[in-house]
Amino acid sequence: MRHTWEFFSTERIVYGNGSIRELDKILQRIKAKNVFLITDPGIKGAGIADKVLRLLEEAQYQVVVYDQAVPEPPIQTAIDCYEFAKAHMDTDAIIGLGGGSSIDLAKVVALLMAHGGHPSDYFGEHRVPGPIAPLIAIPTTAGTGSEVTSVAVLADLENNLKIGISDNYLRPAVALLDPELTVGLPPYVTACSGIDALSHAIEAYTAKDFRYIRAEGELLFQGSLPLADALAYKAIELIAKNLVLAVQQGSNLEARGNMLLGSLLAGMAFSNAGTAAAHALAYPIGGLVKSPHGEVTGLLLPYVMAYNTDVEQEKMAKIALAFGVNPAGKTEKELAEVAWQEVFKLVEAIGLPTRLSQIGIKEEDLAEIASKSLGINRLIRNNPRVPTQKSLEELLRKAL
Amino acid sequence: MRHTWEFFSTERIVYGNGSIRELDKILQRIKAKNVFLITDPGIKGAGIADKVLRLLEEAQYQVVVYDQAVPEPPIQTAIDCYEFAKAHMDTDAIIGLGGGSSIDLAKVVALLMAHGGHPSDYFGEHRVPGPIAPLIAIPTTAGTGSEVTSVAVLADLENNLKIGISDNYLRPAVALLDPELTVGLPPYVTACSGIDALSHAIEAYTAKDFRYIRAEGELLFQGSLPLADALAYKAIELIAKNLVLAVQQGSNLEARGNMLLGSLLAGMAFSNAGTAAAHALAYPIGGLVKSPHGEVTGLLLPYVMAYNTDVEQEKMAKIALAFGVNPAGKTEKELAEVAWQEVFKLVEAIGLPTRLSQIGIKEEDLAEIASKSLGINRLIRNNPRVPTQKSLEELLRKAL
Repeated sequence: MRHTWEFFSTERIVYGNGSIRELDKILQRIKAKNVFLITDPGIKGAGIADKVLRLLEEAQYQVVVYDQAVPEPPIQTAIDCYEFAKAHMDTDAIIGLGGGSSIDLAKVVALLMAHGGHPSDYFGEHRVPGPIAPLIAIPTTAGTGSEVTSVAVLADLENNLKIGISDNYLRPAVALLDPELTVGLPPYVTACSGIDALSHAIEAYTAKDFRYIRAEGELLFQGSLPLADALAYKAIELIAKNLVLAVQQGSNLEARGNMLLGSLLAGMAFSNAGTAAAHALAYPIGGLVKSPHGEVTGLLLPYVMAYNTDVEQEKMAKIALAFGVNPAGKTEKELAEVAWQEVFKLVEAIGLPTRLSQIGIKEEDLAEIASKSLGINRLIRNNPRVPTQKSLEELLRKAL
Repeated sequence: MRHTWEFFSTERIVYGNGSIRELDKILQRIKAKNVFLITDPGIKGAGIADKVLRLLEEAQYQVVVYDQAVPEPPIQTAIDCYEFAKAHMDTDAIIGLGGGSSIDLAKVVALLMAHGGHPSDYFGEHRVPGPIAPLIAIPTTAGTGSEVTSVAVLADLENNLKIGISDNYLRPAVALLDPELTVGLPPYVTACSGIDALSHAIEAYTAKDFRYIRAEGELLFQGSLPLADALAYKAIELIAKNLVLAVQQGSNLEARGNMLLGSLLAGMAFSNAGTAAAHALAYPIGGLVKSPHGEVTGLLLPYVMAYNTDVEQEKMAKIALAFGVNPAGKTEKELAEVAWQEVFKLVEAIGLPTRLSQIGIKEEDLAEIASKSLGINRLIRNNPRVPTQKSLEELLRKAL
């Protein structure tokens, strides 16, 4: 039995409509003058990067922009981006502006700026030797929570793998969240990223109690712990009430703001508590099909919740309440059964696939998906019900 | 109308029974070798300081101990403590071990180590120019939340005043919370500090919405904001369920642990959202009588809640739910009215005074208490109902 949990947090979170105008104040506190801005062509095309650039130039900062970030950035992109920065200025602060991938890329560049070497020197967990360069993360999607997490994911193109660097030093120094920047996000991207945030929140909230996680030493993903629970539950409430609105009314700034807040809280929660079986199963599926990560975790989430319901009855019942289910006349067991159904209905309502066959998974893939996911120990050990090859195959068959 | 909120947090929180044994690991991450331990004679006498010292010496740290911290430390104590450290070693890290006063003292010493000068150079808000020396806060009471807050209070003996230094740089780098260290706390101290934590949580939760706070610029106490709300509400639940147990069964480690957690979450919440009228009124009362701060805020809390109920109906109703009140057959308005009564009953149940006359306040003091509290703008502007001289006098008369 484990007795201690830890909670790491981004030191400063700034949130609000128009909060992008706080950037000058934030940089002043860091005492930065020379700023390296990392973003992607989509954000550049939408005019968001130029808006940020204008704010910085008006406030007399020296700015170099790298706008070639790509989804799931290859290792070489991280090296190129770092070399580009080195060639152009002595950087005091880095800004990662965009979706999770731009922010992940910014994390790796901030790491290389502080400690040199090659990204592969840091692959895995707990391999970053100290603080990274000052990093301000500005998300433009409500999903990954990367602005407050300890993880960066790169693509190893040679071996067709996704490789993670996970370390508490990787957390950005400041997370700056401006809902106005997310208004232009198309419905499908809003749906995929929003349901991913819900997966983070629900998997963190229903993860196995930290005391019963079977592992030694310091863990990044520790299982469910009270501080993360409080944040994850608030995230579930926010996302349950706002995701359909954000998808259907892209310009609804209140819904956008609540989704961005939900995604932030989910990120704070899961980067300490961890995720579980839905994420473990999503990795091998992601290797087989081209669906975005959120589409896959969202599809799996209700099936994994159903799979876990018997061992997490109380928390599942509370999730039903967060979805606005009226508890009158229902036992806790009945409420718990409703929770996964509510999530299923939400996935349907935002127009995402609800069956693995819809995204191209076949009966004959299931055994391998199950066995590969069982190898992702840091997520599998976090699941409240102990996953087995047989029971995961059954879960996947129900989802087919 | 304000559009942006900020949330500052201690970067690392370590919590659990026996977590004091993580100290070596924590110091390693800070790369510290020479440690200055600040504590008070009570903690020394209870053997807790020696326990920590032994752990540090076993792990080969150079340690200098200052065990002369006192409640509400005078300015001169802070200077003496800093000079003592300077005379004995080049300090890499400071540990503040004890109640809120020991931790506050450690904050000021860590500030002087980083920036020199005299404590008075930093009195007020936003006057700390940069990060303070690495500070690990280890609370031995569940109340002030000082281990995660941005405030240190010193006594100005010459002018018979309490003086605060408030700055987000003052937050300790690490908060280490070990419930086992709080088991020896006597019932009266447990009651006073526990009800103070509840006051932090309820005042932060029911503070005026950050959007409607009338003030310009960057505020330390910003009013109610969603992230603080989530933490404050969890704190209210924990304290409502565990304070009587912790007072009545001092050795109940589960109740002690939940109180320490509640006090932590309340500290995270109120150090961003702020407190309100109960704290504003407690300051002038504290100048008139010798009651501990928690006894005064706890006494005032239900009366202030009743005063605010009409303008905070929804949140007051939720507080009633956190106290376990069955909502069946009750309107929100009725539930809201129950909230302050539940808090009143709790104050009674833990054996604390529920009337100002019991602590020596007289009818003729009320006008001055009201008018002095109205001058504490950073708290008064945070109250959901706009306080006036007349209505505060009425509130105080009800509490007499």
